[in-house]
Amino acid sequence: MNTKPYVEQHKDRFIQELIDLLKIPSISADPAYKEDVILTADKVKEALEKAGCDKVEICETPGYPIVYGERIVDEKLPTVLVYGHYDVQPPDPINLWDSPPFEPVIKETETHPDGAIFARGACDDKGQMYMHVKALEYMTQNDELPCNIKFMIEGEEEVGSESLGWFLERNREKLANDVILISDTGMISKDVPSITTGLRGLSYVEVEVTGPNRDLHSGLYGGAVANPINILCDMIAQLHDENNHITIPGFYDKVEELSKEERAEMAKAPFNQEAYNKALDINKEHGESGYTTNERNSIRPTLDVNGIWGGYTGEGAKTVIPSKAFAKISMRLVPDQDWKEITQLFKQHFEYLAPESVTVKVKPHHGGTAYVTPIDFVGYQAASKAYEDTFGKTPIPQRSGGSIPIVALFEKELHSKSILMGFGLDSDAIHSPNEHFGIWNYLKGIETIPHFYKHFAAMNS
Amino acid sequence: MNTKPYVEQHKDRFIQELIDLLKIPSISADPAYKEDVILTADKVKEALEKAGCDKVEICETPGYPIVYGERIVDEKLPTVLVYGHYDVQPPDPINLWDSPPFEPVIKETETHPDGAIFARGACDDKGQMYMHVKALEYMTQNDELPCNIKFMIEGEEEVGSESLGWFLERNREKLANDVILISDTGMISKDVPSITTGLRGLSYVEVEVTGPNRDLHSGLYGGAVANPINILCDMIAQLHDENNHITIPGFYDKVEELSKEERAEMAKAPFNQEAYNKALDINKEHGESGYTTNERNSIRPTLDVNGIWGGYTGEGAKTVIPSKAFAKISMRLVPDQDWKEITQLFKQHFEYLAPESVTVKVKPHHGGTAYVTPIDFVGYQAASKAYEDTFGKTPIPQRSGGSIPIVALFEKELHSKSILMGFGLDSDAIHSPNEHFGIWNYLKGIETIPHFYKHFAAMNS
Repeated sequence: MNTKPYVEQHKDRFIQELIDLLKIPSISADPAYKEDVILTADKVKEALEKAGCDKVEICETPGYPIVYGERIVDEKLPTVLVYGHYDVQPPDPINLWDSPPFEPVIKETETHPDGAIFARGACDDKGQMYMHVKALEYMTQNDELPCNIKFMIEGEEEVGSESLGWFLERNREKLANDVILISDTGMISKDVPSITTGLRGLSYVEVEVTGPNRDLHSGLYGGAVANPINILCDMIAQLHDENNHITIPGFYDKVEELSKEERAEMAKAPFNQEAYNKALDINKEHGESGYTTNERNSIRPTLDVNGIWGGYTGEGAKTVIPSKAFAKISMRLVPDQDWKEITQLFKQHFEYLAPESVTVKVKPHHGGTAYVTPIDFVGYQAASKAYEDTFGKTPIPQRSGGSIPIVALFEKELHSKSILMGFGLDSDAIHSPNEHFGIWNYLKGIETIPHFYKHFAAMNS
Repeated sequence: MNTKPYVEQHKDRFIQELIDLLKIPSISADPAYKEDVILTADKVKEALEKAGCDKVEICETPGYPIVYGERIVDEKLPTVLVYGHYDVQPPDPINLWDSPPFEPVIKETETHPDGAIFARGACDDKGQMYMHVKALEYMTQNDELPCNIKFMIEGEEEVGSESLGWFLERNREKLANDVILISDTGMISKDVPSITTGLRGLSYVEVEVTGPNRDLHSGLYGGAVANPINILCDMIAQLHDENNHITIPGFYDKVEELSKEERAEMAKAPFNQEAYNKALDINKEHGESGYTTNERNSIRPTLDVNGIWGGYTGEGAKTVIPSKAFAKISMRLVPDQDWKEITQLFKQHFEYLAPESVTVKVKPHHGGTAYVTPIDFVGYQAASKAYEDTFGKTPIPQRSGGSIPIVALFEKELHSKSILMGFGLDSDAIHSPNEHFGIWNYLKGIETIPHFYKHFAAMNS
């Protein structure tokens, strides 16, 4: 198998097709973009049909539709299910984008001398999902598809994949597979390919602190009534102790503790704290005492405020004690932590922290369970060999700090393992202004994926 | 002197004139309203001319203009300088207004059975300032102005009166007076008239905490880098100790401590904690240990967050570690605290609190010094008698928690004492949604003010 010439020959079209997809603002979090989200599903359907699926459906759900496609070569052959998502994160803060988030542009960067496509969703996950569509095109055009392939591309990943469980329950037979293939993670660097073998879980909540029943003048009332912003800050501050441990009772009870040996193995991954800090422009890293940066962002659970607001935030000064203050808070979880239980523990503790002078509401948003892929699984081995074919190097198995809550759900509902072949880089600024995806990475993904099918089919025969 | 019949006869016009003034959104904090602010100055000029000033000028300053007007009866007679402001607070949060903030409506309320005008600035300070314009009309129309009168109406009170000092320095002679009269405060209730004899000072700052140089994905980086929102909350939490004392070193050094007797005198003012809590819908008051509610909001300095923002604040969920988080923080100060010194102490302490993993900027906004009016001053005595004439009761001298920074400035620059005859009520929701001013209060103010001139002129003769 030599995928490179075909990819080279068609690369301009591959890039243009992705750019067209990136122009549609499929922001699932914001109801104002509903039509664009649905339009994106239609475009994905068309693309799957053109790439060689013999059946493609827009499957309605209680939320946004799921695009299902398949090409069944022979029912006796193994089946690969590709998962991806066509929705994107909101682009806020929009003023920090160098070019509009839904007007893709190609620019060269230090990391991407061949150019990178700058747009919301370029890497997460339209670009990475589309590599699989183009890999299918390669395999059908060159008659190199050695097994069955199914696609399940959803539109609610960035808001918690709420309809996916509903869909899985109702379509177990249709979705039956031997392995699930996902590109929604990153690799260490262009020189150091890696496969993500662990993902953190997530619990996402929104909190509201109410003080007085209306906004008050801080001169007349200041000092005499609870200011909900001050109280909220106080409560948030109490969620960590001086060692940056999370203080929620029971939070760490089920956390998987890695052995010394496992931590020593992890520590072998190439990492330079100084370069890391420099890339982020920070004087010092910050995290839980007793753990390294790579441990803090992968094998340890965390709690972060993702948004806070209250009072007057416009230009100038307003001397107000607001009635309410709000925060969005997420916790990243590690294997064995149950996100529903953690959400409940958070709620109880946060309510407990509230002084009598305010009232508190905790609204759970969504969550997901952590996941680990065993590296002796045939799917992992096939992926590893695919990278060897195109990178000339064995990829490193890596625990990621991110969450793809649905990976645990797949295991539960479909009894399948997932292989996370990510081609993005940490510096691609996913979820941030100026998200981008290297053209080299995009094309390398399209080149590498067919090799996975080749090895996986061979290993299963 | 009997002011009531004239006020009764012209009240519909007095109300309509105020409504016309309230329709102009003179929001000094927001540059988008610049033309409206300037238009309001023009309208005030016209009103002063019609009311009987024999000279009115729009005085340019480095900021918004100051409207100056005068009616000189006889240079040998004493002179009263009326101060007020024609700018208003921003109306945010606008969705909590029952009617648009710049479309005044009259509605009856429990406190105001005769109706109240609902609009931004109705009480603070267009309504209270306009009482003085109409009091002048009364005195000129009825030939009862017993002394000279000057008006100085500014347009930057809600943003710190920055140009006022500049103007005072350059116009000491023009502004020469024997007493300054201001209605920009409240009274205890319609049954319990009061004169404000103390005002708190103010230091208003904005803080910015920067973590990483760009927004990050909380999965990939969560737990390993400082989240500026968490850090900001932590730093804000540290600004108070467990007794709600402010922790800034040196903050209390110059605070005037009242004697037991003075505090006992204060405690005589009618106050019901239960009714106070009920009116604000809170289960419990909150403030510095060892002080009562009325002490906390008048003789004690405070620190409140007036606004906070950072990260994703839209609908739904976004798992981001923002690069920056912000807060607007104000401190109310008491006599002998120097606002510039306090601002500096805050800055030093806040910078000291910042961990190495973030950078912090503190931007001072504006400030003002606290003030006390002695009740044996002739101006106070004249005001007290004016209330006796129209309310049939001696007003209570009262320390207020609010700040009118320029009162201390007047004393410094013009060597004059200010008399704070406020006719608003605490429940008028100034700086809040649904600000209003009772029609009874508005007309009562117009009735009462001419009596002040009568007594003040008599006492000075």
